[in-house]
Amino acid sequence: MENFTFYAPTYFAFGKDTEADTGSYIKRFKGTKVLIHYGGGSVIRSGLLERVKESLKQENLEYVELGGVRPNPRSGLVYEGIELCRKEGIDFILAVGGGSTIDSAKAIAAGAVYEGDFWDFYSGKIVEQALPVGTVLTISAAGSEGSPDSVITKEEGMFKRGATGEALRPRFSILNPALTQTLSPYQTACGVTDIMAHLYERYLTNTKDVDVTDRMIEALLLAMIQAGPKAVRDAADYESRANIMWAGMMAHNNSCGVGRTQDWTSHDIEHELSALYDCAHGAGLAVTMPAVFTYNMHHDVMRFAQIAVRVWGCQMDFAHPEETARAGIEALRSFLISIGMPGNFAGLGAEEKDIEKMAHSACYGNGNTGSIGGFVKLEQKDVEAIYRLML
Amino acid sequence: MENFTFYAPTYFAFGKDTEADTGSYIKRFKGTKVLIHYGGGSVIRSGLLERVKESLKQENLEYVELGGVRPNPRSGLVYEGIELCRKEGIDFILAVGGGSTIDSAKAIAAGAVYEGDFWDFYSGKIVEQALPVGTVLTISAAGSEGSPDSVITKEEGMFKRGATGEALRPRFSILNPALTQTLSPYQTACGVTDIMAHLYERYLTNTKDVDVTDRMIEALLLAMIQAGPKAVRDAADYESRANIMWAGMMAHNNSCGVGRTQDWTSHDIEHELSALYDCAHGAGLAVTMPAVFTYNMHHDVMRFAQIAVRVWGCQMDFAHPEETARAGIEALRSFLISIGMPGNFAGLGAEEKDIEKMAHSACYGNGNTGSIGGFVKLEQKDVEAIYRLML
Repeated sequence: MENFTFYAPTYFAFGKDTEADTGSYIKRFKGTKVLIHYGGGSVIRSGLLERVKESLKQENLEYVELGGVRPNPRSGLVYEGIELCRKEGIDFILAVGGGSTIDSAKAIAAGAVYEGDFWDFYSGKIVEQALPVGTVLTISAAGSEGSPDSVITKEEGMFKRGATGEALRPRFSILNPALTQTLSPYQTACGVTDIMAHLYERYLTNTKDVDVTDRMIEALLLAMIQAGPKAVRDAADYESRANIMWAGMMAHNNSCGVGRTQDWTSHDIEHELSALYDCAHGAGLAVTMPAVFTYNMHHDVMRFAQIAVRVWGCQMDFAHPEETARAGIEALRSFLISIGMPGNFAGLGAEEKDIEKMAHSACYGNGNTGSIGGFVKLEQKDVEAIYRLML
Repeated sequence: MENFTFYAPTYFAFGKDTEADTGSYIKRFKGTKVLIHYGGGSVIRSGLLERVKESLKQENLEYVELGGVRPNPRSGLVYEGIELCRKEGIDFILAVGGGSTIDSAKAIAAGAVYEGDFWDFYSGKIVEQALPVGTVLTISAAGSEGSPDSVITKEEGMFKRGATGEALRPRFSILNPALTQTLSPYQTACGVTDIMAHLYERYLTNTKDVDVTDRMIEALLLAMIQAGPKAVRDAADYESRANIMWAGMMAHNNSCGVGRTQDWTSHDIEHELSALYDCAHGAGLAVTMPAVFTYNMHHDVMRFAQIAVRVWGCQMDFAHPEETARAGIEALRSFLISIGMPGNFAGLGAEEKDIEKMAHSACYGNGNTGSIGGFVKLEQKDVEAIYRLML
């Protein structure tokens, strides 16, 4: 195991009706003037936004609002938010929504206390200072509620990049599984896929002897395999949604990724798809992961065999471990399709003609200098081959 | 899943040579005048205490020392530490040692800022204020490095009680697996057993549909089953010790115990043994757990069958699940004996004549009013029967 530090000081309030305490948590973490940041209609239609505002009023907290966050959140709204924070003297940002809203809130939080262009953080600069952020989560997926990460799409050129820094960990996150009961089966499945991708990205490591984190990752994948289809089938199933919600946070707060190299190839390759076609990130990952794993399998057949046996219940073929490894990848693909995810480019609205452009952007954008991948080093020609496996 | 809150803001520095940064972590968490608290000879002999002091000197931190913590730490030294803190104006307590030292440090930290008798906290009062505590861990076992708990033995009467409160979570914990390489096989096995007990206490729940935390607990148990025997066999095996160290923290920071009832019967029953006979807590648990589980098995046969299949690799006997449940308990017992733990009263130096006294103390001490157990409610006669299973 490699040396590491781990610091995850987010306060989680989990369960039914917990959003009623939003105001008191903001007070606990010293907020006085709040920017409430959210997306579109659903938080308004469901009455959630009203309930949250009511909770702030009860604590005599001042607030201003900025809605309009879209999936694959855009830089334009971030600039608007930063300006608003400065003009209004905001000292706390509350994100009410999913990963897109939280990531947009984090970008605003970092930008509001930074003299330069906030995009610097999405070009490799570590975030060391930010306004405090709290969240009321409405979809289990991105794990942004407990992570120090944020992903934003730059409108000029439509590319998607990530920023990180301990200052971006939310001060508190309110996780009420009931708030996710209004999601469609497709949205639910996208979330489940994203969570599973966060686990696979950590599982694919070149560090030896990391059984404890291997086992934790496998545990969370098994929990998703059990709860995912139930939540997709029955939106009202609170218990499955509760299991998914805690797994989604644990999958990405990095307690199961410490001390080991990680991959993130599937995310880098997917980001090009959702940036260009505006498809759902989870749907993009469902198509990307089996292709990436098939391409990379021979780098460490036993690792893919291990996850096949332990997570997917495949029988170990001791004479031909690569058969087991392949069966595990096929089991993942079948599972994702069974919960309603697309299986190829067509299902995403993606086009073969863009492959070269996307592969180039993946390998040369985001501070990359010609390659991606923490597990296997991949160059543009490799990434192109992976995209072709998705046709 | 039940509603819960989770807040674990301890900063972990994990890996080789991390104790060299102790001073800078104390500074980061605003300590200026430090009480260094430790046990006996081993931290002196190994040179660890000197290295830690050197690190404090480099940061120009003042410190005083209080050694002499014993296993099953005593109230007498806590009173001494509280007085010392007040006299010297201490604002940070650094524990260098294992669970006993950390628990003693936490007791001092709570008592130093409390007007009454610190024992109030070990009689049921929640700790809401305490001096900040940091730790340099030397044995993976108690999980106190990441928990809000502390256990102290009161010398008058020799009984062992616990306190809890978020204020007791360490500000930082330095986890260097290499520091545990000087432990004997017996000490290592005691630690492994304690960690496994923390997982079983959480596993035995009456809450339904908590698959995500079930799976996480199973994962950490599997990691212990893999790493435990290797560390016992080869003290120098850094990688196994690293896996055990992270598992030990995760087992007790409660991320795998949230939203579910927990048991803690084995701990309550064991505390009487280690208080009366001064045996190692882990050794006491090795004898206690199989007896408790055998007695309680019929309360939820399928839960015991689940852990037997998923953790111990038992074949499910679908016609007779109780056979599988029993096989899992036997597998646990055999495993513990295989790593050098005792299997009965004699191995602990415990005596049949004390059973009634211990059962009474367990059921009526620590604020209990005649029964113990979060999984099955047990009265004195039940506890006596369990002790008899250990003869």
